[in-house]
Amino acid sequence: AIYVFAFENPQKPVQADSPTLAARDELTKRESGITQNSPMRLRMEQFVKANQKQIVKAIEELDGKQFLVDEWARSTGGGGISCVLQDGNVFEKAGVNVSVVYGKLPRPAIQRMRADHKALDPDVESLDYFAAGLSIVMHPKNPLAPTVHLNYRYFETANEDGSSNAWWFGGGSDLTPCYLFDEDAIQFHKGLKEACEKHDKSYYPRFKKWCDDYFFNTHRGERRGIGGIFFDDLDEGENDQEQLFAFVKDCLGSFLPAYLPIMQRRKDLPYTEQEKEWQQIRRGRYVEFNLVHDRGTSFGLASPNARVESILMSLPLTARWQYMHLPPKGSREERMLDVLRSPREWI
Amino acid sequence: AIYVFAFENPQKPVQADSPTLAARDELTKRESGITQNSPMRLRMEQFVKANQKQIVKAIEELDGKQFLVDEWARSTGGGGISCVLQDGNVFEKAGVNVSVVYGKLPRPAIQRMRADHKALDPDVESLDYFAAGLSIVMHPKNPLAPTVHLNYRYFETANEDGSSNAWWFGGGSDLTPCYLFDEDAIQFHKGLKEACEKHDKSYYPRFKKWCDDYFFNTHRGERRGIGGIFFDDLDEGENDQEQLFAFVKDCLGSFLPAYLPIMQRRKDLPYTEQEKEWQQIRRGRYVEFNLVHDRGTSFGLASPNARVESILMSLPLTARWQYMHLPPKGSREERMLDVLRSPREWI
Repeated sequence: AIYVFAFENPQKPVQADSPTLAARDELTKRESGITQNSPMRLRMEQFVKANQKQIVKAIEELDGKQFLVDEWARSTGGGGISCVLQDGNVFEKAGVNVSVVYGKLPRPAIQRMRADHKALDPDVESLDYFAAGLSIVMHPKNPLAPTVHLNYRYFETANEDGSSNAWWFGGGSDLTPCYLFDEDAIQFHKGLKEACEKHDKSYYPRFKKWCDDYFFNTHRGERRGIGGIFFDDLDEGENDQEQLFAFVKDCLGSFLPAYLPIMQRRKDLPYTEQEKEWQQIRRGRYVEFNLVHDRGTSFGLASPNARVESILMSLPLTARWQYMHLPPKGSREERMLDVLRSPREWI
Repeated sequence: AIYVFAFENPQKPVQADSPTLAARDELTKRESGITQNSPMRLRMEQFVKANQKQIVKAIEELDGKQFLVDEWARSTGGGGISCVLQDGNVFEKAGVNVSVVYGKLPRPAIQRMRADHKALDPDVESLDYFAAGLSIVMHPKNPLAPTVHLNYRYFETANEDGSSNAWWFGGGSDLTPCYLFDEDAIQFHKGLKEACEKHDKSYYPRFKKWCDDYFFNTHRGERRGIGGIFFDDLDEGENDQEQLFAFVKDCLGSFLPAYLPIMQRRKDLPYTEQEKEWQQIRRGRYVEFNLVHDRGTSFGLASPNARVESILMSLPLTARWQYMHLPPKGSREERMLDVLRSPREWI
């Protein structure tokens, strides 16, 4: 990986009168390092950063081209590391992004979040919060190779004494092919199902359906892709923190073993100009989902001081909008659309 | 123009127990034709359809390729005519769309609209409404030639006896170059200013600012282009209906005399691969504005039975998202960005 934009804006989190959550965590890290007994914030941060390195390394080996690594800080606290591979040999664009944010939730945001998290105190004006996550989107060049998305995140609010108040995990991973290969869809879902079943038999069917429901271009009546899993707000009402962290670890662990073999099979297949054009039209639908429907993108773009380039790293390098494009009856393109309109059970 | 998809779904507006506004208007047209004394609904429909024909003809002459003409109807009432020229000689994509919609506003929509239109009765469950508009977006191939957008619309709600209740006009036109030619910006704004000044000295400065404020990619801190005019909700509080219709006519009339000479000057200029790439990046920003911020697009995509292909006709044929693209200091690309960040007074 090539470190180019390193520390473009390396400001420290703002220091308040009493030590902030960020300052406390900084102190803990310096004094005791990160162990199994550290707060989940520090363990999640360490975990996503280690996985970012590992995934960047594996994708660089697959592509033959290196990622640019961009470390950044927000003046309001927190920052991240954006790794981007653009115009590679295998990938048109691949982004592997870590963000670790310390911030303050204003009252209206607290009110909204109380719908899912009763532990949040409704009577405070603001709350310190922490969010750490890993986000990946990879768009291959070859139209026969699928785009993949992954995101795992941990969210926490703090009491005034720095102890944690509400917390939850969210995330998932989904696959977006332009051409359907049942073999790929099955392998991708199988990896996620196995990770789920180590923890709870209900997880895979619940989170598979949640994914089909979430990644839905309602205005097109099409899902974005062939799904995977998606979950949010998993807190103590679901399971204890250690168990949920172990679950997220297994989900993330299933990513490379599923996606790398799929890419090995597809990346060098010959393809036609028509297939490339269909890919570009499908890229357009990807853009539509992310800009019109994705909650994370909307939330990010509406945040003051948002790092827009890291949020929009998920967009493809190129896309196409062709008026009234209709695949011919019985074509592979039409078969793809059928599955996007009526999600399948792959296993 | 080539009529290809004509009457793809030529359903008549749904007939209710008492004759709907649509049925009444249909009858008036059959029995008396459209005259100066006809309701504004029918005059606006006739006006936008005549202008659509004229503009399609002029753009076909400029491009040398013909538009596809697509006439459609919504099962819930209303329809439109979409004219699209794709992959032409001069235009990558050009859309000239008329829509004429008869529908029912549900109570929450009425409540929202009351903020601007006190004539709306807050106590009814739903209101018949009518909307007619002409929308144009043209994306040239040559990166030195500017994209243009135009929209003029008339909106009306009906009392139970079919007489009109609230009504208003909205619209405007704005230019989006990738490279700045002061001459083009001045000519475009001059045409609009002259149209405005025939009616009210305050219109051009007010509506020029409204345009700069509206076409703003807040998340980028950039306007979409170099502006033009934009206005909405012009009703009896602004001027009488005849005066406002005359104003809209003059605005629309200024479009071809300004845009055609600009295109004549730019369409055949030689350009480099780098300039084409910059154009593609700017196309990406156009997509961002339309999908993230544009109220008309959001409203359209959220409507049940929306004709998505007509709404998204405004998107370019192709676009590009390149991570952390920064134009070199002192370049023409940087000069363009400067103007998008700090709008200028052109006249």
